[in-house]
Amino acid sequence: MAMSLKFKQLGLIGCGLMGASFALALQKHKLVEKVVGFSPSARTRERALQLGVIQQAATSAAEAVQGCDIVLLAVPVSRTAECLQAMAPFLSPDCLLMDVGSTKTDVVVAAAAHLGERLPCFVPAHPIAGKAQAGVDHAEAELYQHRRAILTPLAQTGAVQLENAKQVWAAIGSHVSTMTPEAHDSTFAAVSHLPHLLAFAAVNALVAQPQSNALLEMAGPGFRDFSRIAASDSAVWRDILSANQDEVLKQMAHFRAALAQFENALKNGDTPGLQQLIQQASEVRSAWSLQASDAGQNAPDT
Amino acid sequence: MAMSLKFKQLGLIGCGLMGASFALALQKHKLVEKVVGFSPSARTRERALQLGVIQQAATSAAEAVQGCDIVLLAVPVSRTAECLQAMAPFLSPDCLLMDVGSTKTDVVVAAAAHLGERLPCFVPAHPIAGKAQAGVDHAEAELYQHRRAILTPLAQTGAVQLENAKQVWAAIGSHVSTMTPEAHDSTFAAVSHLPHLLAFAAVNALVAQPQSNALLEMAGPGFRDFSRIAASDSAVWRDILSANQDEVLKQMAHFRAALAQFENALKNGDTPGLQQLIQQASEVRSAWSLQASDAGQNAPDT
Repeated sequence: MAMSLKFKQLGLIGCGLMGASFALALQKHKLVEKVVGFSPSARTRERALQLGVIQQAATSAAEAVQGCDIVLLAVPVSRTAECLQAMAPFLSPDCLLMDVGSTKTDVVVAAAAHLGERLPCFVPAHPIAGKAQAGVDHAEAELYQHRRAILTPLAQTGAVQLENAKQVWAAIGSHVSTMTPEAHDSTFAAVSHLPHLLAFAAVNALVAQPQSNALLEMAGPGFRDFSRIAASDSAVWRDILSANQDEVLKQMAHFRAALAQFENALKNGDTPGLQQLIQQASEVRSAWSLQASDAGQNAPDT
Repeated sequence: MAMSLKFKQLGLIGCGLMGASFALALQKHKLVEKVVGFSPSARTRERALQLGVIQQAATSAAEAVQGCDIVLLAVPVSRTAECLQAMAPFLSPDCLLMDVGSTKTDVVVAAAAHLGERLPCFVPAHPIAGKAQAGVDHAEAELYQHRRAILTPLAQTGAVQLENAKQVWAAIGSHVSTMTPEAHDSTFAAVSHLPHLLAFAAVNALVAQPQSNALLEMAGPGFRDFSRIAASDSAVWRDILSANQDEVLKQMAHFRAALAQFENALKNGDTPGLQQLIQQASEVRSAWSLQASDAGQNAPDT
């Protein structure tokens, strides 16, 4: 089955960095014959045609998905529900439908509400890849290579769709994992969403001080790396943090408890206790290394 | 005066990464004729001789400083006071004495208590440089090149000593700034000490959860950079956070206030407010770039 994986037509909803890179990857690996793409921006559609990302431009999501055996929804998370609703009546019964959103329980709720009898087509996906610069012009066929792709199937997801989803991501070089939407969202609240929030808050805490410019001038490479993710896109992260707020708030409570231990050790002059707290973090972080990839050195990983 | 800067003998107290690199830098730039070094470890003294870091090994700090016109104290911060006390009676009246500690008000208090009439010799220094691997074996003459060196003179510091201190750091390639010890400690509490503490706490918050291994396995490049400083040495950071606890606690209060803004926006479903908070951080961090250096990519910057 892996050898014969081949799609006739990809319907690409959203021709930005993520969607366009997926289309290029499928074409590079000869996994699809034709790509029909929709973007609300005429300029983006034009560029996607010029760059060979798509072979045909559609003027709506509904039009783009017709006759497709694979559909990728790659729009801002806040647009997911309306897009699913618009395309649902036009999806082929046996197609594979995926998204690329960074949160999954919200997408699953939207899918259950809007996909009706096409719900088995849907395999929610979160490819953990990105680039500092967004947009179709920065798309590349290798974006997903050596990066994680996490699939969070629903109970209703078709077995064939799930299998095809695994194969298509693996075929373009991703490391595929599956987990429940809930496990996905609690995991990424811990290892991605909360760290982003902490980095945002740390920068804002500096900005709130009158001498913030003088402070920032003295910041070094430690601050640079610690705060790099604070430069992330505000609309993207508004959506992620909002969509996953329950899990993010839970992680914030874990963090506050860990922070309070440091505060208590400092206030009580408990030097051995302070060292123990640091040592735990230092040992765990020293032993940890990036599993899936050594690529994407400075890529945002929403 | 800059052209004629030349010392006869450097007394090096502590032959680890920081001290040994300073000795190598002075020799590389022909700023000193001879280096006499002391380390409590016989093996370190031996290696320092072998590597040409020092030309003569002393068996005590007191012995090492005798007859020196420049002395560098490069020991763990917790040892500073005892070393100053031990060497004070043996310092030459006009020598330049510097340390390399990451906190400065504590060093100034120790100096005032122990240096007596040699207090004018002392120019507290904080070169913002480091390497992942410590020890004399990793010393290099270029460690301080293109890095900041911050001098925090006391009211009693001699004008000649201060001028010579500025010149010697500049001569080995550092970008020299001066500030008060208090301004130094509040600045670095904000841009270095608190970020380290937050990174330690963030890792500990993960460790506190039963599924921490599964969580860490899913962490990506964002987490990698955010948490890099959490791998820092526990004894070094115990000393830094303890020595600067008042300023660190003040910065923690600023951070908690910034964190509470995020928490409130999330709990109240205030999506525009949430985006505004993120956008402020994102704009400030995007506009910021490392001023002094593009070297030391992954160096700890205590």
